[in-house]
Amino acid sequence: MDALLRSRPLNTATEEEVAVETPVALTVNGVSQAVMLATPADLDDFALGFGIAEGWFASPRELLDVEPTTQPDGIELALTVTAGCEQRLRQRRRTLAGRTGCGLCGVESLAQLGAVRPAAVTAPELVDGALARALAALPAAQPLNARCGGLHGAAWCQPDGTLLLAREDIGRHNALDKLTGALARRGVDTGDGFVLMSSRASHELVHKAAMAGVGLLACMSAPSSLAIATARDLGLQLWAFVREGRATRYA
Amino acid sequence: MDALLRSRPLNTATEEEVAVETPVALTVNGVSQAVMLATPADLDDFALGFGIAEGWFASPRELLDVEPTTQPDGIELALTVTAGCEQRLRQRRRTLAGRTGCGLCGVESLAQLGAVRPAAVTAPELVDGALARALAALPAAQPLNARCGGLHGAAWCQPDGTLLLAREDIGRHNALDKLTGALARRGVDTGDGFVLMSSRASHELVHKAAMAGVGLLACMSAPSSLAIATARDLGLQLWAFVREGRATRYA
Repeated sequence: MDALLRSRPLNTATEEEVAVETPVALTVNGVSQAVMLATPADLDDFALGFGIAEGWFASPRELLDVEPTTQPDGIELALTVTAGCEQRLRQRRRTLAGRTGCGLCGVESLAQLGAVRPAAVTAPELVDGALARALAALPAAQPLNARCGGLHGAAWCQPDGTLLLAREDIGRHNALDKLTGALARRGVDTGDGFVLMSSRASHELVHKAAMAGVGLLACMSAPSSLAIATARDLGLQLWAFVREGRATRYA
Repeated sequence: MDALLRSRPLNTATEEEVAVETPVALTVNGVSQAVMLATPADLDDFALGFGIAEGWFASPRELLDVEPTTQPDGIELALTVTAGCEQRLRQRRRTLAGRTGCGLCGVESLAQLGAVRPAAVTAPELVDGALARALAALPAAQPLNARCGGLHGAAWCQPDGTLLLAREDIGRHNALDKLTGALARRGVDTGDGFVLMSSRASHELVHKAAMAGVGLLACMSAPSSLAIATARDLGLQLWAFVREGRATRYA
């Protein structure tokens, strides 16, 4: 399945490309875990990053294989994990469910909130102008978005603002999952740089970043109150409104 | 709980306002149904609109009462519904869960997709320039967003583009739920106008709009492939990239 699809609008003469949004069902050792709406690109990275955010893995090496299969109504991502990981998941298993936005899926009542608490993270020392430099590099790192719009970007950057790696998805949380998965696959030390996101700063992005060991998250748009509170609680450095000539530090 | 919170950034001298994002747990006749991350404003509308999108109600009158209670970790919204509605829900109950983004919550595998199919909708005949007129009126209808950014808006507009009512939330799906709830509460004929959203056009927004009887959805940003497919399937007229001097019709 392609990440972009040609579509003919009804009021223009030419075809346009649109971002594909498709159900992606994750199974772990044959057991259904979640269905997400995602853009079908970098799904190996997505599987690993999503699992890291959920606290599935003690180490990325516990993910042995990811096998995508196209189904009539979406994509099934079959994850194979070690026996130790499977046992841990069975103990912890809640009814996880699809989400591109909230971070609280499978939680039916307030008492169940909290989920897995990440270990403490540390932020790198930013070089002057680093955020502006990363911001300027982001558009070129989002080739899909350049073609059709509507895709969020998550980028991994050095403390001086050099953008090293980016991932895209129609959902901002998926974009971050893909990025952290790609970093884990490469064995990158996530304490040694920062993540820049094209989106708003939500609670779940902060939580996902910290779960992946990222100590500094910078977002182009506004933060939510819960994102700020979570960042302060977890010791994560949070920047928002990262725009031309501006950046506000909230935690 | 207020919709906005004063927060002091670390690198500026003055306080700023940020949008509140808080867990909102919905119970129906005492049974937990879902936890959403939402902005605590217009929660009565949200409860009704969320229920309409989920197909809980045969009529808005089945929702007898909404009682918000502030808890240490969020807000509990206690819905009281008629006995007939409760019984229907009991039969249909899946493990719904929090989401601001995906529309597939509670769905663990692709086979469970589909949920409640809305009745056929019809689009109103748009007057020339209606979308541009509604777009121009939207900022003034988003007073919270004007103060802190980061909030999505959903607006109900007449076929000539006159904006009649708007709702805001940090999640675009919540904003639409609040709007459709407010319309249902007022007994508005939703076939008689259109909804303009400040966001991208996702599958779930199309589904929610159709569940509320809305036949035309216009979004400021890009559509996803699934949004277009769903709109065509449901007979909903979908416009995206509604921006200055531009609007593209996809379905």
